[in-house]
Parts: sequence; structure tokens; C-alpha cells
Amino acid sequence: MSKTRLEAFSDGVIAILITIMVLELKVPHGSDWRVLRPVLPDFLAYVLSFVFLGIYWNNHHHMLQAAARVNGRILWANLHLLFWLSLVPVVTHWIGQNYTQPLPVALYGVVLLLAGIAYFILARLLVSHHGPDSTLSLALGPDRKGRISIAIYAAAILLAFASTWISCALYVVVAIIWLVPDLRIERALTSRQPPRPNLEGR
Amino acid sequence: MSKTRLEAFSDGVIAILITIMVLELKVPHGSDWRVLRPVLPDFLAYVLSFVFLGIYWNNHHHMLQAAARVNGRILWANLHLLFWLSLVPVVTHWIGQNYTQPLPVALYGVVLLLAGIAYFILARLLVSHHGPDSTLSLALGPDRKGRISIAIYAAAILLAFASTWISCALYVVVAIIWLVPDLRIERALTSRQPPRPNLEGR
Amino acid sequence: MSKTRLEAFSDGVIAILITIMVLELKVPHGSDWRVLRPVLPDFLAYVLSFVFLGIYWNNHHHMLQAAARVNGRILWANLHLLFWLSLVPVVTHWIGQNYTQPLPVALYGVVLLLAGIAYFILARLLVSHHGPDSTLSLALGPDRKGRISIAIYAAAILLAFASTWISCALYVVVAIIWLVPDLRIERALTSRQPPRPNLEGR
Amino acid sequence: MSKTRLEAFSDGVIAILITIMVLELKVPHGSDWRVLRPVLPDFLAYVLSFVFLGIYWNNHHHMLQAAARVNGRILWANLHLLFWLSLVPVVTHWIGQNYTQPLPVALYGVVLLLAGIAYFILARLLVSHHGPDSTLSLALGPDRKGRISIAIYAAAILLAFASTWISCALYVVVAIIWLVPDLRIERALTSRQPPRPNLEGR
Repeated sequence: MSKTRLEAFSDGVIAILITIMVLELKVPHGSDWRVLRPVLPDFLAYVLSFVFLGIYWNNHHHMLQAAARVNGRILWANLHLLFWLSLVPVVTHWIGQNYTQPLPVALYGVVLLLAGIAYFILARLLVSHHGPDSTLSLALGPDRKGRISIAIYAAAILLAFASTWISCALYVVVAIIWLVPDLRIERALTSRQPPRPNLEGR
Repeated sequence: MSKTRLEAFSDGVIAILITIMVLELKVPHGSDWRVLRPVLPDFLAYVLSFVFLGIYWNNHHHMLQAAARVNGRILWANLHLLFWLSLVPVVTHWIGQNYTQPLPVALYGVVLLLAGIAYFILARLLVSHHGPDSTLSLALGPDRKGRISIAIYAAAILLAFASTWISCALYVVVAIIWLVPDLRIERALTSRQPPRPNLEGR
Repeated sequence: MSKTRLEAFSDGVIAILITIMVLELKVPHGSDWRVLRPVLPDFLAYVLSFVFLGIYWNNHHHMLQAAARVNGRILWANLHLLFWLSLVPVVTHWIGQNYTQPLPVALYGVVLLLAGIAYFILARLLVSHHGPDSTLSLALGPDRKGRISIAIYAAAILLAFASTWISCALYVVVAIIWLVPDLRIERALTSRQPPRPNLEGR
Repeated sequence: MSKTRLEAFSDGVIAILITIMVLELKVPHGSDWRVLRPVLPDFLAYVLSFVFLGIYWNNHHHMLQAAARVNGRILWANLHLLFWLSLVPVVTHWIGQNYTQPLPVALYGVVLLLAGIAYFILARLLVSHHGPDSTLSLALGPDRKGRISIAIYAAAILLAFASTWISCALYVVVAIIWLVPDLRIERALTSRQPPRPNLEGR
């Protein structure tokens, strides 16, 4: 079964999720510097969620590029991932309005955690569909970064009830883990040839 | 006439429908466990409708993959299907707010019923366009599941005026009918070769 | 220059326009048959606009299928068409709420008229880019239906100030002109071979 | 790495951004000519932003068409561009409501400026990925127009605190710079053969 529509559909859903978050950035009433202040937490939450959805799109792109074919289970595992990603705008708006409250901060992490697990399941199904010696399996590797992210999310959820600042900092840390080495590895790969596919690093 | 844009357009519409339903998941005011309670029915209605739209996307994907070409009537039959699917977010929000009221529960079923009929029409037009001996026709088969779903929807609409719980349970039953055997058949198919295309089972 | 992205982008915009109109179908407060009554004009306006956008998507699909290549002017002519189509949800909601008032009924026609003219310009640019003897030019023909539609829109705009019912009836007439013969010609074409491309009839 | 999904994803995001701006065009209460007056600034802001997003889509289309391949850094540079473009609907609505206030007018320019810089970074990364002698590099040239636009945006931001009318006029000037010569160069190119790719002029 061809992977084209799976890619197109996922692209569509993620593109829409990224842009409907903007609808929650309420235009300030008034036209003064001070009116921007209450929008700031919403804006920062938007930036963070934009980066997370960008990371998912990027990783999804790389993983599917290495995949040759899909099956019905993989289609559903992909829909499962999209389901949790679809809740990102909801929790983004909630955390933006209540960034000092444990429950919204914890729930933001719960959605990221479940999206992370859904991505993990999707990756495993793709690997088992392509076999352990496929390019896809080698490229994905043990997915250390995915496991670490899930552990950090779990910690952030629990710590939200102690300090919401620590939780928020942990979410930023996960984003940086994926964002920064991505660029570094890319640079390393382009400097020495041939570029072995390395999906984990992206 | 090529089917590429039909697929792309349908993907776009279904992707948007799935994601705009999220806009109705109103962010709770407050940051307490109790504020989540009123959102729960909306959330469950969202999950159910997400699964239904996912099933339609999945089935559409499989059916069009087996199709070789389309014509103007098929384009309109597809738009007809998308029309009824486009009403899913509206009835989802209404049922979420009024899940104990007969009318919203029945109307949810009416939209699903009409979408089911529209899918049936689309499938028949595709079969008649490709001929009774085409891969598409063999793969679609008598479409027992589609007929059963339509019967259950009709029952659920009538029963909504007796008990909304029974109706809601019937909607969940239809979702399970499509979701569970899908995975089972997939597994069965992959275990013995060659995998004969079986669209009904997905 | 390849036409792939032009098609994909137009598909995306039209898919979104069709679905965001649903956001304006406000879920009725209450759960009684009577609460559905005030939603009815909005619903009928939605159906009409869905059909118009469906016709545009269908015609666009057919025309671009016959096109081999595009240029920068055609990209802008296409964006110009999408601009007027993007106003359809706005006037749909307005006419739904004020279907007995001349101004909203006339403005609905103005948007359709300008979209019709924009489509006409796009078609002419495509023809002049492909040459008078191209398949595209032959397939488009003199575009009698497009000219008649524009004339009916103009009449409907003026007549809105006499009777909004006549205007609304004229909008329905245009939709039928495009919808019904489309299916008839399709049937005629498939019965006798070879099927000469006839874009005007769709 | 293939550029297909980068194009598809960007198309999706820009298509959605263009259409969700329409959601902010609030349907006037009432049905009188006078009710349209307060919508006028919002409408003009919509037209301007539609043109800007159209220019970006157009330029992006041309640039990626000349590109052969992408890498992870380019994916992120593209997401960076989409981030700033995603703020266009927010500032469009704000400027529409407060077109005489310095802050909203200046912020509109800030978003355009940062989107311009993001586009510049994306173009440089694409050039360095393809090498200085690639078709892409030759086609992009020194990108005089991009540099001039960025300078005008910077001027408009500062001048907003002196006169919002001058700033708004400067935004319109940038739109005209991109829009008008585009069509002229296109015409020039088609009249003499062979058509050397000229991305700057579009």
C-alpha cells in the first residue's frame, strides 16, 4: 500500500494544527504596549507548541521518507498520533492562560507524553513491517532521544504539582534536545561523505 | 480522468474537519480538576467523531487505491460524501452539549447515516465505472459492513427517542465494527500470502 | 513551470473554504425541533455555497487537467480567483442571517460575479498561454455557460433591490445550470466513444 | 532528501493562513450600506495581507522549483518562515481595528520584516546547499528586491510612530514592487526566447 496519502494527510493535519493555534492568539483590545503583556504567555506557549509540532512534522517526514510501504495498522497508528497532536492547540491555550497552575501545566505534558508514545508505536510498527535489517530500522536505531523525551515528559507532569516553572523548563529542554543536535548532526553529516541516513538525530 | 486531485482534495477536507472539531473543545475556565468535568462529554464526542472520520479516510484511501480512474459523476458523488462529513463537527458539538436529549443524539445518527449512504453511492459509481470484474469490484465485494452500519444508524436514530444511551452505544458499536476487525483481518492477511485486496474488511 | 503546486494550493484553499463555512453553522441552544428553525436559512445558504465551491473545484480540476504548463501571470490570476472565492464564507453567513434584505443578497451575487469574472480571466490566460489550437482551447470552447452565469449574477444583483426571492432563485438556477447538464453530458459522453474532452459541460 | 513534502506542507500552511484571515471579517450586524463601513478597514487589511501571502507563496513556489534537494536545516529555515507568516492573520486583524495607532501599524511591519528576513535565510541556505554555480543561485541572483523590501519595512516600522498613513503607504509600495514588475518581467520573458529563469523578478 502506497504511503503518499498517509504523508499528504499527516501534512494537512499538522499544517492545520499549527495554524489554528494562531486563532487563539486573541488580538489585544487597545493599541498600547501594555495591552501586549497579557498576550505574552499565550505567545510563548504558541512558540513552544509550534516548535513541538515542527519537530513532529520533521521527524515524521524523515521516518516516512525511509519507509517503503504502509499497511492498515500503520494508518491507524498514524491517526492515533494525529489524535494526540490534535489536542496540542487545546492544551496550548489552556497553559497560556494558566501557566502558574499545576493542572494545565501537567496536562500539557500528558498530551506531549501520549503523542510521544504514539510516535514510538508508529515507529515500531513501521520497523516490524519493514524488517529488522531494513534501512528504516537502521536509520531509526534504538531511538534513545524518543525514550529520553518520554521520561522527561513523565517527570515534568509529576513536578508540575511541585513547581510549574520546572515543568515548563523541562518542556523547553525537550524541544532543545530535538532542535539543536538536529542542526549539529546535519552539519556533521554534510561535512563527511557518504551521508548515512540518521533519523534519530533529527 | 486522473484520481490524484480527488484524493488530495478529500484528504484536505477530512484533515480540516478532524482538526476544526478541536476548536469546539473549549478551554476550561479555571485550573481545577473539577473544571474538566463539563468538557468530558465534548471530549468523548470528539473522540468518537475522530474515529468515524478516521474510518472514512481509511476506507476512502483503500477504495481509491484500488480505483484506476474517475469521472465527473464520481467527483460529485465524492463531494456529496464530503458534504455530509462536513456536518460531523456541527452535530458533534451539539451532541457533546446535549447527550441526554433525543433530538441531538438522533441528528448525530442522521448525519452518519447520510454519510454512509453517500459512501455507498460513491462505491457503486466507482464499481460501475470500472466494471464488475475489476479489482475494485472484487475488493469491495457485497460491502456487508456498510449495509449493517446503515441499518444500525437507522435503529439508533429511532431509539434515540426511547433512550439516548442505547443510541450512543450503537454509534460506538459501529465504530468498533470497523476498527477492530480491520486490525484482525490485516493481521490474517499478512500471515498468509498472497495478500488478496480486501477493502470491505478495512 | 509545473502546474502541480498550483493545483495543490487551490485544492487546499477550496477545501478550507468549504469546511470553515461549517464553523458559522452555530449549534442551536436547546435540543428541541423548534431550535433548528433559525439555523435553517444558514444551512440552506451553506448548501448553496457548498455547491458553488464544488462547481468551481470541479471546473478548475477539469481545466487544469487539460493544461500542460503555467506561468507567473496564471499563478496570479489563480490567486485572484481564490481571493473572491475566499469571500464566499463571509457573504454566505451574511445572507443566511439576512435573506430578506436587499444588500446581503446583492453582495452574495457580487462575490459570485467577481469570482466568475476571475475564472473567466484565468481561462483566457491559460488559453493564450497554450495557443488557440491546443486541447485546452478546444475543450474550453466559447464558454457559453460561463458567460450566461455572469449575466444571471448581474441580473440577480440588480433584482435583489426589487425582490430578494427572485435573486436567490437566480442563484439556485445558476447552480442547477452547472450541476445538472454536467451529469447528463457525462452520461452522453460515456455512452459513445471516443470521449472528446468537453470542459464547458462540466 | 526530497522537497515534495516541504512544498506540500508549505502550501497547506499558507493556504490555511490565507483562509483563516477571512474568519476575522466579522459579518456586519444589520443589512444597511452603513454597516459595511466599519468592516472596510478590516477588508483592506485582508486584501493587503492576502497579496503579501500570495507573493510569498509565489516566490516560494519559484524558488523551490529551481531547488533540487533539501536538508534538515532547510526544513527548519522553512518552518521559521512559516512561523512569521503564521502571525500575519493576528497582526492583520489588529491593524484593521487600529489602523491609526502606531503600535499595531508598527507590529504589522515587524512581522513582515521578520518574515522577509526568514525568507532571506531560507534562500541563502538553499543557495549554499546547491552551490554558487547552481541554477538556483543564478536564478536568485543578488535578490535586490528582497533587500529593498526589508529596508522599507524597517523604515515603515519607525515611521509608524510619526504617521501611520506613511507606514501603511510603504506596505502598499512593497506589495506593488513585487506584484507589478512580476507581470512585466513575465511578459518580457515570454516575448524573447529562451526564457532564462529569473526568480528575483517574481
